[in-house]
Amino acid sequence: MPFYDSAVPAYLQMLGSLSASLKKAETYAAAKKMEPAALLGTRLFPDMLPLSRQIQLACDFATKGSARLSGSEIPAVPDTETTFDELQQRIARTIDYLKTFKPAQFDGAEAREITFPTGPGKTTTMSGQQFLTSFSLPSFYFHVTTAHGILRMAGVEVGKRDFLGAN
Amino acid sequence: MPFYDSAVPAYLQMLGSLSASLKKAETYAAAKKMEPAALLGTRLFPDMLPLSRQIQLACDFATKGSARLSGSEIPAVPDTETTFDELQQRIARTIDYLKTFKPAQFDGAEAREITFPTGPGKTTTMSGQQFLTSFSLPSFYFHVTTAHGILRMAGVEVGKRDFLGAN
Repeated sequence: MPFYDSAVPAYLQMLGSLSASLKKAETYAAAKKMEPAALLGTRLFPDMLPLSRQIQLACDFATKGSARLSGSEIPAVPDTETTFDELQQRIARTIDYLKTFKPAQFDGAEAREITFPTGPGKTTTMSGQQFLTSFSLPSFYFHVTTAHGILRMAGVEVGKRDFLGAN
Repeated sequence: MPFYDSAVPAYLQMLGSLSASLKKAETYAAAKKMEPAALLGTRLFPDMLPLSRQIQLACDFATKGSARLSGSEIPAVPDTETTFDELQQRIARTIDYLKTFKPAQFDGAEAREITFPTGPGKTTTMSGQQFLTSFSLPSFYFHVTTAHGILRMAGVEVGKRDFLGAN
Protein backbone atom coordinates (compact mmCIF):
# COMPACT_ATOMS: atom_id res chain seq x y z
CA MET A 1 0.00 0.00 0.00
CA PRO A 2 1.31 3.47 -0.70
CA PHE A 3 2.18 5.47 2.41
CA TYR A 4 -0.23 8.11 1.07
CA ASP A 5 -3.08 5.77 2.15
CA SER A 6 -2.18 6.21 5.81
CA ALA A 7 -2.43 9.98 5.62
CA VAL A 8 -4.50 11.78 3.00
CA PRO A 9 -7.63 9.55 3.13
CA ALA A 10 -7.66 9.93 6.93
CA TYR A 11 -7.62 13.72 6.68
CA LEU A 12 -10.20 13.74 3.88
CA GLN A 13 -12.65 11.47 5.68
CA MET A 14 -12.70 13.51 8.85
CA LEU A 15 -12.78 16.90 7.15
CA GLY A 16 -15.79 15.70 5.16
CA SER A 17 -17.56 14.57 8.31
CA LEU A 18 -16.57 17.77 10.12
CA SER A 19 -18.13 19.81 7.32
CA ALA A 20 -21.36 17.78 7.52
CA SER A 21 -21.53 18.17 11.32
CA LEU A 22 -20.90 21.90 10.98
CA LYS A 23 -23.80 22.11 8.54
CA LYS A 24 -26.04 20.45 11.15
CA ALA A 25 -24.74 22.92 13.73
CA GLU A 26 -25.63 25.87 11.52
CA THR A 27 -29.18 24.57 11.00
CA TYR A 28 -29.48 23.92 14.74
CA ALA A 29 -28.26 27.41 15.65
CA ALA A 30 -30.79 28.97 13.26
CA ALA A 31 -33.66 26.82 14.62
CA LYS A 32 -32.76 27.70 18.21
CA LYS A 33 -32.17 31.35 17.32
CA MET A 34 -28.61 31.05 18.64
CA GLU A 35 -26.09 33.67 17.56
CA PRO A 36 -23.79 31.76 15.14
CA ALA A 37 -20.83 33.55 16.72
CA ALA A 38 -21.87 32.29 20.16
CA LEU A 39 -21.86 28.67 19.00
CA LEU A 40 -18.58 29.12 17.08
CA GLY A 41 -17.11 30.69 20.22
CA THR A 42 -18.13 27.80 22.49
CA ARG A 43 -15.33 26.03 24.36
CA LEU A 44 -15.27 22.84 26.46
CA PHE A 45 -13.53 24.85 29.19
CA PRO A 46 -12.62 28.55 29.39
CA ASP A 47 -8.89 28.00 28.77
CA MET A 48 -9.47 25.75 25.77
CA LEU A 49 -9.83 26.96 22.20
CA PRO A 50 -13.28 27.73 20.78
CA LEU A 51 -15.03 25.70 18.08
CA SER A 52 -13.87 27.99 15.26
CA ARG A 53 -10.19 27.50 16.24
CA GLN A 54 -10.62 23.73 16.59
CA ILE A 55 -11.82 23.69 12.98
CA GLN A 56 -9.00 25.91 11.76
CA LEU A 57 -6.46 23.73 13.56
CA ALA A 58 -7.91 20.51 12.12
CA CYS A 59 -7.49 22.07 8.64
CA ASP A 60 -4.00 23.17 9.58
CA PHE A 61 -2.78 19.77 10.72
CA ALA A 62 -4.17 18.13 7.58
CA THR A 63 -2.54 20.74 5.34
CA LYS A 64 0.84 20.83 7.06
CA GLY A 65 0.98 17.07 7.56
CA SER A 66 0.42 16.42 3.87
CA ALA A 67 2.79 19.20 2.80
CA ARG A 68 5.58 17.99 5.08
CA LEU A 69 5.24 14.33 4.14
CA SER A 70 5.23 15.10 0.42
CA GLY A 71 8.09 17.59 0.73
CA SER A 72 5.88 20.39 -0.61
CA GLU A 73 5.98 24.02 0.39
CA ILE A 74 3.64 24.69 3.30
CA PRO A 75 0.87 27.03 2.17
CA ALA A 76 0.40 30.13 4.30
CA VAL A 77 -3.23 30.12 5.47
CA PRO A 78 -4.36 32.99 7.71
CA ASP A 79 -6.92 32.14 10.41
CA THR A 80 -9.54 34.76 9.61
CA GLU A 81 -12.81 32.76 9.57
CA THR A 82 -15.60 34.00 11.85
CA THR A 83 -18.78 32.58 10.29
CA PHE A 84 -20.17 29.15 9.39
CA ASP A 85 -19.80 29.99 5.71
CA GLU A 86 -16.19 31.04 6.06
CA LEU A 87 -15.35 27.92 8.08
CA GLN A 88 -17.05 25.73 5.48
CA GLN A 89 -14.96 27.45 2.82
CA ARG A 90 -11.82 26.85 4.86
CA ILE A 91 -12.64 23.14 5.09
CA ALA A 92 -13.52 22.99 1.38
CA ARG A 93 -10.25 24.70 0.40
CA THR A 94 -8.33 22.27 2.61
CA ILE A 95 -10.07 19.31 0.97
CA ASP A 96 -9.29 20.74 -2.49
CA TYR A 97 -5.65 21.15 -1.49
CA LEU A 98 -5.43 17.58 -0.16
CA LYS A 99 -6.93 16.29 -3.39
CA THR A 100 -4.09 17.80 -5.41
CA PHE A 101 -1.69 15.18 -3.99
CA LYS A 102 -0.86 12.04 -5.93
CA PRO A 103 0.03 8.90 -3.96
CA ALA A 104 3.49 8.84 -5.57
CA GLN A 105 4.34 12.13 -3.85
CA PHE A 106 4.33 10.25 -0.54
CA ASP A 107 6.48 7.33 -1.70
CA GLY A 108 9.42 6.89 0.65
CA ALA A 109 8.11 9.58 3.01
CA GLU A 110 7.72 7.03 5.80
CA ALA A 111 11.52 6.71 6.07
CA ARG A 112 12.47 10.32 5.22
CA GLU A 113 13.43 12.67 8.05
CA ILE A 114 10.87 15.37 8.74
CA THR A 115 11.77 18.44 10.78
CA PHE A 116 8.89 20.44 12.20
CA PRO A 117 8.28 23.08 14.88
CA THR A 118 7.17 21.73 18.28
CA GLY A 119 7.29 24.92 20.28
CA PRO A 120 8.62 28.47 20.24
CA GLY A 121 12.12 28.28 18.71
CA LYS A 122 12.09 24.49 18.92
CA THR A 123 12.02 21.85 16.20
CA THR A 124 11.88 18.06 16.29
CA THR A 125 13.14 15.65 13.64
CA MET A 126 11.70 12.18 13.13
CA SER A 127 10.85 9.75 10.34
CA GLY A 128 7.78 10.47 8.25
CA GLN A 129 6.09 7.41 9.73
CA GLN A 130 6.73 8.63 13.26
CA PHE A 131 5.71 12.18 12.36
CA LEU A 132 2.40 10.91 11.01
CA THR A 133 1.68 8.35 13.75
CA SER A 134 2.93 10.14 16.85
CA PHE A 135 2.20 13.78 15.99
CA SER A 136 0.20 14.70 12.92
CA LEU A 137 -2.69 12.22 13.12
CA PRO A 138 -3.24 12.43 16.92
CA SER A 139 -3.14 16.25 16.74
CA PHE A 140 -5.56 16.25 13.82
CA TYR A 141 -7.98 13.85 15.55
CA PHE A 142 -7.65 15.85 18.75
CA HIS A 143 -9.09 18.95 17.09
CA VAL A 144 -11.74 17.12 15.07
CA THR A 145 -12.93 15.24 18.16
CA THR A 146 -12.87 18.35 20.33
CA ALA A 147 -14.95 20.18 17.72
CA HIS A 148 -17.39 17.26 17.85
CA GLY A 149 -17.43 17.40 21.67
CA ILE A 150 -18.23 21.12 21.59
CA LEU A 151 -21.11 20.51 19.18
CA ARG A 152 -22.42 17.71 21.42
CA MET A 153 -22.13 19.90 24.51
CA ALA A 154 -24.06 22.64 22.71
CA GLY A 155 -26.87 20.17 22.01
CA VAL A 156 -26.29 19.63 18.27
CA GLU A 157 -27.59 16.18 17.36
CA VAL A 158 -24.48 14.56 15.97
CA GLY A 159 -23.23 11.14 16.99
CA LYS A 160 -20.39 8.74 16.44
CA ARG A 161 -21.63 7.93 12.94
CA ASP A 162 -21.48 11.62 12.00
CA PHE A 163 -18.00 11.78 13.48
CA LEU A 164 -16.83 8.86 11.34
CA GLY A 165 -18.66 10.17 8.28
CA ALA A 166 -20.54 6.86 8.09
CA ASN A 167 -23.95 8.46 7.38
CA MET B 1 8.15 0.38 7.06
CA PRO B 2 6.16 -2.52 8.53
CA PHE B 3 2.40 -1.93 8.62
CA TYR B 4 2.66 -2.62 12.38
CA ASP B 5 4.23 0.86 12.71
CA SER B 6 0.98 2.52 11.65
CA ALA B 7 -1.03 0.77 14.34
CA VAL B 8 0.53 -0.57 17.53
CA PRO B 9 2.83 2.40 18.33
CA ALA B 10 -0.18 4.74 17.90
CA TYR B 11 -2.24 2.77 20.40
CA LEU B 12 0.68 2.44 22.83
CA GLN B 13 1.54 6.14 22.78
CA MET B 14 -1.97 7.30 23.57
CA LEU B 15 -2.70 4.62 26.17
CA GLY B 16 0.50 5.67 27.94
CA SER B 17 -0.53 9.32 27.90
CA LEU B 18 -4.09 8.42 28.95
CA SER B 19 -2.72 6.53 31.95
CA ALA B 20 -0.56 9.53 32.95
CA SER B 21 -3.51 11.93 32.60
CA LEU B 22 -5.69 9.59 34.65
CA LYS B 23 -3.03 9.59 37.37
CA LYS B 24 -3.19 13.42 37.44
CA ALA B 25 -6.98 13.18 37.60
CA GLU B 26 -6.82 10.87 40.61
CA THR B 27 -4.45 13.23 42.44
CA TYR B 28 -6.69 16.16 41.54
CA ALA B 29 -9.84 14.41 42.76
CA ALA B 30 -8.15 13.60 46.07
CA ALA B 31 -6.89 17.19 46.51
CA LYS B 32 -10.35 18.60 45.76
CA LYS B 33 -12.07 15.95 47.88
CA MET B 34 -14.07 14.85 44.83
CA GLU B 35 -15.67 11.43 44.91
CA PRO B 36 -13.57 9.39 42.46
CA ALA B 37 -16.79 7.83 41.15
CA ALA B 38 -18.20 11.30 40.44
CA LEU B 39 -15.22 12.22 38.27
CA LEU B 40 -15.21 8.82 36.55
CA GLY B 41 -18.92 9.28 35.89
CA THR B 42 -18.53 12.72 34.31
CA ARG B 43 -19.81 13.13 30.75
CA LEU B 44 -19.47 15.96 28.23
CA PHE B 45 -23.25 15.79 27.75
CA PRO B 46 -25.89 13.65 29.47
CA ASP B 47 -26.39 11.29 26.51
CA MET B 48 -22.67 10.72 26.01
CA LEU B 49 -20.66 8.01 27.76
CA PRO B 50 -18.88 8.77 31.05
CA LEU B 51 -15.12 8.99 31.51
CA SER B 52 -14.81 5.37 32.70
CA ARG B 53 -16.50 4.07 29.51
CA GLN B 54 -14.37 6.33 27.28
CA ILE B 55 -11.30 4.69 28.80
CA GLN B 56 -12.69 1.18 28.43
CA LEU B 57 -13.57 1.88 24.80
CA ALA B 58 -10.14 3.31 24.02
CA CYS B 59 -8.65 0.06 25.40
CA ASP B 60 -11.18 -1.93 23.40
CA PHE B 61 -10.42 -0.29 20.05
CA ALA B 62 -6.68 -0.76 20.58
CA THR B 63 -7.14 -4.41 21.53
CA LYS B 64 -9.59 -5.32 18.80
CA GLY B 65 -7.79 -3.31 16.13
CA SER B 66 -4.52 -5.11 16.81
CA ALA B 67 -6.19 -8.51 17.10
CA ARG B 68 -8.10 -8.10 13.84
CA LEU B 69 -5.13 -6.78 11.87
CA SER B 70 -2.86 -9.57 13.07
CA GLY B 71 -5.52 -12.24 12.56
CA SER B 72 -5.46 -13.12 16.26
CA GLU B 73 -8.37 -14.22 18.38
CA ILE B 74 -10.10 -11.25 20.00
CA PRO B 75 -9.70 -11.47 23.77
CA ALA B 76 -12.95 -11.25 25.74
CA VAL B 77 -12.55 -8.34 28.17
CA PRO B 78 -15.50 -7.55 30.45
CA ASP B 79 -16.09 -3.85 31.27
CA THR B 80 -16.15 -4.07 35.05
CA GLU B 81 -13.83 -1.23 36.13
CA THR B 82 -15.28 1.32 38.54
CA THR B 83 -12.21 2.87 40.23
CA PHE B 84 -9.05 4.71 39.18
CA ASP B 85 -6.99 1.67 40.16
CA GLU B 86 -9.08 -0.72 38.14
CA LEU B 87 -9.01 1.57 35.09
CA GLN B 88 -5.24 1.90 35.39
CA GLN B 89 -5.02 -1.88 35.48
CA ARG B 90 -7.23 -2.12 32.41
CA ILE B 91 -4.93 0.26 30.53
CA ALA B 92 -1.83 -1.59 31.79
CA ARG B 93 -3.23 -4.96 30.71
CA THR B 94 -4.07 -3.50 27.29
CA ILE B 95 -0.53 -2.16 26.93
CA ASP B 96 0.89 -5.55 27.95
CA TYR B 97 -1.32 -7.24 25.36
CA LEU B 98 -0.26 -4.82 22.61
CA LYS B 99 3.38 -5.44 23.46
CA THR B 100 2.99 -9.16 22.77
CA PHE B 101 2.67 -8.41 19.03
CA LYS B 102 5.66 -8.70 16.73
CA PRO B 103 5.78 -6.44 13.65
CA ALA B 104 5.81 -9.51 11.37
CA GLN B 105 2.32 -10.45 12.59
CA PHE B 106 1.02 -7.39 10.73
CA ASP B 107 2.86 -8.03 7.47
CA GLY B 108 0.41 -8.02 4.60
CA ALA B 109 -2.48 -6.98 6.86
CA GLU B 110 -2.87 -3.71 4.94
CA ALA B 111 -4.17 -5.64 1.91
CA ARG B 112 -5.99 -8.46 3.74
CA GLU B 113 -9.79 -8.27 4.04
CA ILE B 114 -11.03 -7.57 7.56
CA THR B 115 -14.65 -8.21 8.51
CA PHE B 116 -15.87 -6.53 11.66
CA PRO B 117 -19.18 -5.65 13.33
CA THR B 118 -20.49 -2.15 12.62
CA GLY B 119 -23.89 -2.38 14.26
CA PRO B 120 -26.41 -4.88 15.58
CA GLY B 121 -26.39 -7.84 13.19
CA LYS B 122 -24.27 -5.90 10.70
CA THR B 123 -20.70 -6.41 9.54
CA THR B 124 -18.47 -4.50 7.16
CA THR B 125 -15.55 -5.83 5.14
CA MET B 126 -12.62 -3.68 4.01
CA SER B 127 -8.87 -3.88 3.59
CA GLY B 128 -6.71 -3.77 6.70
CA GLN B 129 -5.41 -0.36 5.65
CA GLN B 130 -8.94 1.00 5.31
CA PHE B 131 -10.03 -0.65 8.56
CA LEU B 132 -7.17 1.01 10.40
CA THR B 133 -7.41 4.43 8.73
CA SER B 134 -11.15 4.88 8.41
CA PHE B 135 -12.44 3.05 11.48
CA SER B 136 -10.05 1.78 14.13
CA LEU B 137 -7.75 4.78 14.58
CA PRO B 138 -10.45 7.49 14.41
CA SER B 139 -12.62 5.53 16.87
CA PHE B 140 -9.65 5.04 19.19
CA TYR B 141 -8.67 8.72 19.07
CA PHE B 142 -12.31 9.69 19.53
CA HIS B 143 -12.45 8.01 22.93
CA VAL B 144 -8.97 9.10 24.04
CA THR B 145 -9.73 12.72 23.10
CA THR B 146 -13.17 12.65 24.69
CA ALA B 147 -11.63 11.30 27.90
CA HIS B 148 -9.16 14.20 27.73
CA GLY B 149 -12.02 16.67 27.14
CA ILE B 150 -13.90 15.34 30.18
CA LEU B 151 -10.79 15.74 32.34
CA ARG B 152 -10.32 19.29 31.03
CA MET B 153 -13.96 20.13 31.66
CA ALA B 154 -13.62 18.81 35.22
CA GLY B 155 -10.69 21.16 35.80
CA VAL B 156 -7.83 18.63 35.72
CA GLU B 157 -4.68 20.41 34.59
CA VAL B 158 -3.78 18.42 31.51
CA GLY B 159 -2.91 19.96 28.17
CA LYS B 160 -2.07 19.04 24.61
CA ARG B 161 1.40 17.87 25.67
CA ASP B 162 -0.15 15.42 28.14
CA PHE B 163 -2.51 14.25 25.41
CA LEU B 164 0.38 13.54 23.05
CA GLY B 165 2.46 12.01 25.82
CA ALA B 166 5.20 14.54 25.07
CA ASN B 167 5.94 15.30 28.71
